[in-house]
Amino acid sequence: MSWKDNLEAVRQWIRLGQYSGHTAGLAPGHAQANLVMLPKDQALDFLIFCTRNPKACPILDVLEAGRWEPNVAPGADLRTDLPKYRVFHNGALLDEVKDVGKYWRDDLVSFLLGCSFTFESRLIAAGFSMRHIEQDTVIPVYETNIACKPAGPFFGPLVVSMRPIPATRVVEAVQITARLPRAHGAPIHVGAPAAIGIRDVNKPDWGKPVEIKDDEVPVFWACGVTSQAVAWASRPPFMITHAPGHMFITDLLDTDLTEL
Amino acid sequence: MSWKDNLEAVRQWIRLGQYSGHTAGLAPGHAQANLVMLPKDQALDFLIFCTRNPKACPILDVLEAGRWEPNVAPGADLRTDLPKYRVFHNGALLDEVKDVGKYWRDDLVSFLLGCSFTFESRLIAAGFSMRHIEQDTVIPVYETNIACKPAGPFFGPLVVSMRPIPATRVVEAVQITARLPRAHGAPIHVGAPAAIGIRDVNKPDWGKPVEIKDDEVPVFWACGVTSQAVAWASRPPFMITHAPGHMFITDLLDTDLTEL
Repeated sequence: MSWKDNLEAVRQWIRLGQYSGHTAGLAPGHAQANLVMLPKDQALDFLIFCTRNPKACPILDVLEAGRWEPNVAPGADLRTDLPKYRVFHNGALLDEVKDVGKYWRDDLVSFLLGCSFTFESRLIAAGFSMRHIEQDTVIPVYETNIACKPAGPFFGPLVVSMRPIPATRVVEAVQITARLPRAHGAPIHVGAPAAIGIRDVNKPDWGKPVEIKDDEVPVFWACGVTSQAVAWASRPPFMITHAPGHMFITDLLDTDLTEL
Repeated sequence: MSWKDNLEAVRQWIRLGQYSGHTAGLAPGHAQANLVMLPKDQALDFLIFCTRNPKACPILDVLEAGRWEPNVAPGADLRTDLPKYRVFHNGALLDEVKDVGKYWRDDLVSFLLGCSFTFESRLIAAGFSMRHIEQDTVIPVYETNIACKPAGPFFGPLVVSMRPIPATRVVEAVQITARLPRAHGAPIHVGAPAAIGIRDVNKPDWGKPVEIKDDEVPVFWACGVTSQAVAWASRPPFMITHAPGHMFITDLLDTDLTEL
């Protein structure tokens, strides 16, 4: 067993700054999370935004202003326990850092939002292949023409990730992921990319294109990048997020997120 | 068809102060909601509280500070469209009023939380009898020894309502209500009241006792009164709620709340 399989070891290596790579495949079985940190005077509206857009921003944990120890990972520290962070000023990237360090403020409210890694592991367990993993590439992600429901100053487009699914198993993929509302839940669209404003499925806005075979259809799920797209659109004065792919690993098991 | 069956008529009569009774059975098919209004400086922690205690406080809608028109009922006004309100200062009841009127403040954040009327109508449709409706009485409600997960200054006991269910149909009642997480969802306990700190099921803390027949077991669901119990325990400086049983009637259909 490698240190990569052990949650405590992974968290320790990340905290010490010894590991700053992406977290896909680390501590398998544990739910990973997107991180957003905002000052308290913006946090209420952002939390309202999350409740209005639960597929894009499913709430796993929200910490009161000034707290850094998550309820979903007692003993952990959100200021140090992610491999890479991004710091934004007025929506523009200011810095990329291995710990929050000098940017921490006592009025920061931390949000942990569910991540698609959880439902991917469930799809894989059911025998679906994840093309971006097979091709060892970064999952294709697209801005859509669907607007998130705004809240206070927060607005922006819904961002989706795409996985090719055999046409004969689409219903099954919908049912499996629908049971994981805290990991983006059911897809938001099946088939025709143009119907949600995606001009060319081979030209993702983030990540790399993947092959869609003749017997497959593209299936689109709400994506955690939405919260970053909303930040770019809404330009909050100060915000910290995880760097894409460099998530927080919670104590929750993927199975804890199943509903019904 | 009576005016009581028509959502617009019901809302108009309530707004004009012509009707200030309870809302059970009004505008059937439409989801009703608990109301909580708190000043913005308390609202973030209360919303965090709701996300941590989703069975007691399922979020239907949260409005930005100063807004009174709900997203779940465009054109409605939360300051006038409930038949009766309660105003609290430091956790003590200050006033009971037919509209929010002079108590409105531009920093108030309004929360609409799901209500058990929705799951009762689904249980009735499935052939369950609701004893408190049969006996034309107020549903028995109990404080439990289960603490809600606190958030900021908010803490307090989980409050539950009880419905006797035939022992042979408990599984079915669990399954039906589990599909309605935004209306308190699955029960929190089946059977022995003492296990959740209820000494005498015939002595509810609110409402009236109902008969439990020999072939029935008491089944306990999280109850919207929790938010009021939390207010009494936590003593926020200023809070407005609906008066018990005098709910806000949303445009949502009960069927809109079904998940999966």
